[in-house]
Amino acid sequence: MNVLVTDAGWEPMNQRPMEMVERKGLGHPDTICDCIAEELSRRLSCYYLEQCGRILHHNVDKALLVGGQTEVWFGGGRVLEPMRLVLSGRATVLPDAPCVLGEMALAAARDWLHANLPDLPDEAINVDYLLRPGSAELRDLVENEASAPRANDTSLGVAHAPLSETERLVLAVEETVASFGPVGRDIKIMALRRNDRIDLTIAAAFVASRTPDLETYTTTKAQIEAAVSQVAQQFTSREVVARVNCGDLPAKGRYYLTLTGTSAEAGDDGQVGRGNRANGLITPFRPMSIEAVAGKNPVSHIGKIYNVMAQRIADRLVEQFPQAEVVCYMLSQIGAPITEPVMVHLEVAGVPAKAVEGAARQVTAEVLDSWREIQRGFLAGSFRVA
Amino acid sequence: MNVLVTDAGWEPMNQRPMEMVERKGLGHPDTICDCIAEELSRRLSCYYLEQCGRILHHNVDKALLVGGQTEVWFGGGRVLEPMRLVLSGRATVLPDAPCVLGEMALAAARDWLHANLPDLPDEAINVDYLLRPGSAELRDLVENEASAPRANDTSLGVAHAPLSETERLVLAVEETVASFGPVGRDIKIMALRRNDRIDLTIAAAFVASRTPDLETYTTTKAQIEAAVSQVAQQFTSREVVARVNCGDLPAKGRYYLTLTGTSAEAGDDGQVGRGNRANGLITPFRPMSIEAVAGKNPVSHIGKIYNVMAQRIADRLVEQFPQAEVVCYMLSQIGAPITEPVMVHLEVAGVPAKAVEGAARQVTAEVLDSWREIQRGFLAGSFRVA
Amino acid sequence: MNVLVTDAGWEPMNQRPMEMVERKGLGHPDTICDCIAEELSRRLSCYYLEQCGRILHHNVDKALLVGGQTEVWFGGGRVLEPMRLVLSGRATVLPDAPCVLGEMALAAARDWLHANLPDLPDEAINVDYLLRPGSAELRDLVENEASAPRANDTSLGVAHAPLSETERLVLAVEETVASFGPVGRDIKIMALRRNDRIDLTIAAAFVASRTPDLETYTTTKAQIEAAVSQVAQQFTSREVVARVNCGDLPAKGRYYLTLTGTSAEAGDDGQVGRGNRANGLITPFRPMSIEAVAGKNPVSHIGKIYNVMAQRIADRLVEQFPQAEVVCYMLSQIGAPITEPVMVHLEVAGVPAKAVEGAARQVTAEVLDSWREIQRGFLAGSFRVA
Amino acid sequence: MNVLVTDAGWEPMNQRPMEMVERKGLGHPDTICDCIAEELSRRLSCYYLEQCGRILHHNVDKALLVGGQTEVWFGGGRVLEPMRLVLSGRATVLPDAPCVLGEMALAAARDWLHANLPDLPDEAINVDYLLRPGSAELRDLVENEASAPRANDTSLGVAHAPLSETERLVLAVEETVASFGPVGRDIKIMALRRNDRIDLTIAAAFVASRTPDLETYTTTKAQIEAAVSQVAQQFTSREVVARVNCGDLPAKGRYYLTLTGTSAEAGDDGQVGRGNRANGLITPFRPMSIEAVAGKNPVSHIGKIYNVMAQRIADRLVEQFPQAEVVCYMLSQIGAPITEPVMVHLEVAGVPAKAVEGAARQVTAEVLDSWREIQRGFLAGSFRVA
Repeated sequence: MNVLVTDAGWEPMNQRPMEMVERKGLGHPDTICDCIAEELSRRLSCYYLEQCGRILHHNVDKALLVGGQTEVWFGGGRVLEPMRLVLSGRATVLPDAPCVLGEMALAAARDWLHANLPDLPDEAINVDYLLRPGSAELRDLVENEASAPRANDTSLGVAHAPLSETERLVLAVEETVASFGPVGRDIKIMALRRNDRIDLTIAAAFVASRTPDLETYTTTKAQIEAAVSQVAQQFTSREVVARVNCGDLPAKGRYYLTLTGTSAEAGDDGQVGRGNRANGLITPFRPMSIEAVAGKNPVSHIGKIYNVMAQRIADRLVEQFPQAEVVCYMLSQIGAPITEPVMVHLEVAGVPAKAVEGAARQVTAEVLDSWREIQRGFLAGSFRVA
Repeated sequence: MNVLVTDAGWEPMNQRPMEMVERKGLGHPDTICDCIAEELSRRLSCYYLEQCGRILHHNVDKALLVGGQTEVWFGGGRVLEPMRLVLSGRATVLPDAPCVLGEMALAAARDWLHANLPDLPDEAINVDYLLRPGSAELRDLVENEASAPRANDTSLGVAHAPLSETERLVLAVEETVASFGPVGRDIKIMALRRNDRIDLTIAAAFVASRTPDLETYTTTKAQIEAAVSQVAQQFTSREVVARVNCGDLPAKGRYYLTLTGTSAEAGDDGQVGRGNRANGLITPFRPMSIEAVAGKNPVSHIGKIYNVMAQRIADRLVEQFPQAEVVCYMLSQIGAPITEPVMVHLEVAGVPAKAVEGAARQVTAEVLDSWREIQRGFLAGSFRVA
Repeated sequence: MNVLVTDAGWEPMNQRPMEMVERKGLGHPDTICDCIAEELSRRLSCYYLEQCGRILHHNVDKALLVGGQTEVWFGGGRVLEPMRLVLSGRATVLPDAPCVLGEMALAAARDWLHANLPDLPDEAINVDYLLRPGSAELRDLVENEASAPRANDTSLGVAHAPLSETERLVLAVEETVASFGPVGRDIKIMALRRNDRIDLTIAAAFVASRTPDLETYTTTKAQIEAAVSQVAQQFTSREVVARVNCGDLPAKGRYYLTLTGTSAEAGDDGQVGRGNRANGLITPFRPMSIEAVAGKNPVSHIGKIYNVMAQRIADRLVEQFPQAEVVCYMLSQIGAPITEPVMVHLEVAGVPAKAVEGAARQVTAEVLDSWREIQRGFLAGSFRVA
Repeated sequence: MNVLVTDAGWEPMNQRPMEMVERKGLGHPDTICDCIAEELSRRLSCYYLEQCGRILHHNVDKALLVGGQTEVWFGGGRVLEPMRLVLSGRATVLPDAPCVLGEMALAAARDWLHANLPDLPDEAINVDYLLRPGSAELRDLVENEASAPRANDTSLGVAHAPLSETERLVLAVEETVASFGPVGRDIKIMALRRNDRIDLTIAAAFVASRTPDLETYTTTKAQIEAAVSQVAQQFTSREVVARVNCGDLPAKGRYYLTLTGTSAEAGDDGQVGRGNRANGLITPFRPMSIEAVAGKNPVSHIGKIYNVMAQRIADRLVEQFPQAEVVCYMLSQIGAPITEPVMVHLEVAGVPAKAVEGAARQVTAEVLDSWREIQRGFLAGSFRVA
């Protein structure tokens, strides 16, 4: 097994002079696309498993959410033009069964939306799908599996651990902001750390029906800023300055007010794989994979599986070596078993590579070996994908 | 002006033990989406300029290409189901002029396809659009510009220079492969360098009408592998091993044969911003921006402008300091003039940061000052976006 | 005023040797399209009236209902692929108001479906719209109205009175059939009368959830046939033979069982204007207008207004002359006030034309004069359109 | 065989005091839908015949043409928004062959448009399809045919012969109008005959590129009016007054000028079965079938076959009895062979029913017997459907 452990040239993130971290919250158009694509993949996988005893080929990692149009005012609003979500991709149709792709796609979208965006009424979104049977060649990669499935492509997964202070902060802040009554689920957080100061720029979609007037809006903004500063102290001792909805133009009467709690209601479009990486963050100062995790099949799609495996390897090493900061790259070769990556490359800072090497080999072997469990984890929806 | 120059912890890429570089060629579904979105933005910009004397707000950086279905054999083939391209986004409609968004979108797609994918017949693709007038708030950011436009968002651009040996090789290989008669434009190249060996995995869509028989196919594959090895010598003295279409299964009669020269004809979907970064490459070992450059407005969209500016700063510094390897991060603040970034951060390897600092400040100032020229460059289609 | 009254050559329908009458019930795909198009027109009219004090131009008399796919069994079923309804047409957008066409179209469809097809779950139908602002020329015909509006076209309306025995029977039978619990709203009735025998061929969509087993199905069929024969006696003394769901193939286990109560769930498509005429019937032995009444604007669209006016004229004459059978044709001239038809032609059987002439002139004048009331009638949804 | 011949009560059309006849020309939105639906049915039939030796079930008699938007001026114009044609319906997919429905639909549309509407550029129309496999039950009606196919439904066909003077005139006038260079193919003709005067209201779409200026337009209008009066003399000795484009408003600069020769370019929508009947005419004073002929399968669909058979019976009788005027109704019974109608009813004017009876029986038998030839006629595209 090719496990390469090297000393990272870079410093641990917490010590670097600058850092930038972004998160697009649950109700952001890109995150909506990611989550619904993943939910569809999950349901397809369960369906195949139930019907055939194994997960058949599918790849539904593309979707387009076209923004709609609404009219809002303090206290209420209405839909003028619904958003339009188009789910796209390939999936295997069972030969002697009726085709359920369409129904499954619509149900996945509907159920996810109901569960996660309760402020979004059905009439505010039109869901459509353009799903087709996958090409025979790719199907076989999945279907012929005897033991460990074979990689669908020459691809890679990347992950780092631990999260930096700023990264942890950003993840925590979303929930803090969402806990305020008037706020919806489209919360975008941009953190810029320069040495010991972290500026948080938060765009939070207020829900008009729960924001009866400007005073509520203004007061809530101030409360959020205060609450975030408070919460921040659990994650960092650095100075944290939070600003909410900087784009407001009171002089023009413009506030970030929505009917549904998502900016997609009035213009912003979304796609799968354009937002958060699998750890829930966008971190340009960190190595990232461009591959979308959401919507890919959990059996053979390296762009999905290796991202989760790499995260697990990094996490476990950091558990063992709390001083370490690790980046893990995993590379596949098309057609080879997913348990036999071409290379697992670990960059380690904070402790000498040498000290980690043995543990790294073992952890890697264990994680590769746990592929069935990871597959089941995807089916159970246990892993974050965006 | 905040220009921060620091010594990079990392080694120059050519000296690191491992490197991975990918390029999705011109005919790849993601690249098609990127290029057509950009072409549409370019035309909108020119149209606004001509009609109003300035570029109005638009953001057409979303598109979905749903794969079709074809039947192919050596010597020919036919379309069973056309691909479907949906262009999406926002643009300003001129108040007293007829709405031309639809026509412009279709013409942009058609003209780009005719010019770049000559093997793709009109009937193989159905182009549609879901374009709507942008929201008033964002429009103003563009429309009210007096001098330097104001940033549309808190965002960032990233670039590095120079390209590594492997990166330059990958860019060059696409043209080499494309020069073979039977090959179409969907050429995906994945380079994996381990120390002094570079493995190139090339997936090249053959065009059935120019591939009369299996012998032509097999011979051409071998010729491409030989040609690539030959070309590689101009870029590196390392060992280069090229393999073309490893997914072929001769036993099952499966070859990478297409009617149109793109895999989108038979299943692969594409989206804007899911493929190459603005330098034409996917480089997981390098810092990257997740933002799509393609389709964004060239006036105020930081995700577009700062990526190009960052590249230009890095390139110019490397011209002055040929030993240096530079990564440039540029961060904007929503509402501030684009000429006043929050921070320009340069990581420098190969020469001391100190030595570069003065030049860095000057180059940065010059590049920021050239915003009009960069805007014109986008209008002229001078910059690569994918 | 050109009112021409002539002696009809034909015999009153009840005395002819053969007659054929068809009705597509409320849940038939064509009727669904008609009713929703009309509901949309009605809402647009009310909206314009409320916003501008008059009804602006619109014409939404086109729609396409694409059938879906379901799986049904005695006792239940599920949606595999939803139906797809596309509403189409033109309407005026108010210059300084947000565009509400999309929302209005979706709400019209949703509300009509909820109210009229309670067995149809939301997830069984995907509603879309392709509505655009109408052309300026036609708009003016409506907008410039001072007194009586001007005809939008050279067109005609046709109606007859009284209904024949068979026609009245067919209208009554729908409700009789629908009153059976297991039956849904897609009830198609075809009556063929040969002299004194009337054969009723009834296709009634059973709702699976209320049809637990084959016995219920079979028993209900027999009960319907009996009930229809019973009801028939109120309308005719002729022999009436009713057969329900003749297309069933018990040997193959095929019954007319549906999930939603409409055949559109599994394949049958619908359009506006392809089913019943404005009197609710299809009567090939009677003169008919090909024009759809549903969805047209109630101000100037002759294809809508003159059909209702012609019916009213015929009805009133028959009230005065109970022995008479009347067909009324009304012809408009584009641009002339709707109160000034080119010609009103009445064919009269049963009584001499001469005897009717004076009354005919007076009734015609009164009906033309009641155009405002008729317009209001359309807004109130008082008239049958399919 | 039930052949009922009765003396018609009505007078022959040429002798009645009033008559109204309409034709929507080849380029009218409804006619476009009819013709393309029929072309698709024709191609499907030929394909099935070639692949399976018999014509399999299909029913593609629904389509929606959503109007576009153009900008035109004397001498030229441009597309702002393309029209959108949606083909819909059911067809059988061959079990072991790739699905070709999509490609066939697009090719049928494209080829028909190229051949018939040469002024319509490809970019002015976006063709889409929503075709699905037909339901098993209906399929069997076609597939199990041993000898004569069985009727798919209880339905009817209607036809009359001979055409009246006005009807023949209307058919002839379209070609006369179309022969003028500046005129396109959307020519709508409405004839109103009152005793011995025929008013022809002609709406002819001029093609902007061939109409350089207002003078050409005005002169051509006058020339058409003169030419039509001239041509009319071949068909009738009555007074004929033709008026072209009465909707023009010179004061407002409004003329019937188009880019593409069809009004669908700027707003008018179309559907299958909403325009001309199978004889090419709309004749509200004549019995008509509401059923669309276009797009139905030519094997078992009574709404298609019996309309043509009824026409043939009427035509042949009129050949034998030149003084007669005949209306032929043919009624099917679902599941019975198409050669065994429930009833063929002939109404005869001009000669006594008795005199015609024997010939009627013979002609009917012959025509029923020619079902194979009629089927081939549909495949060859020999019959008018709109």
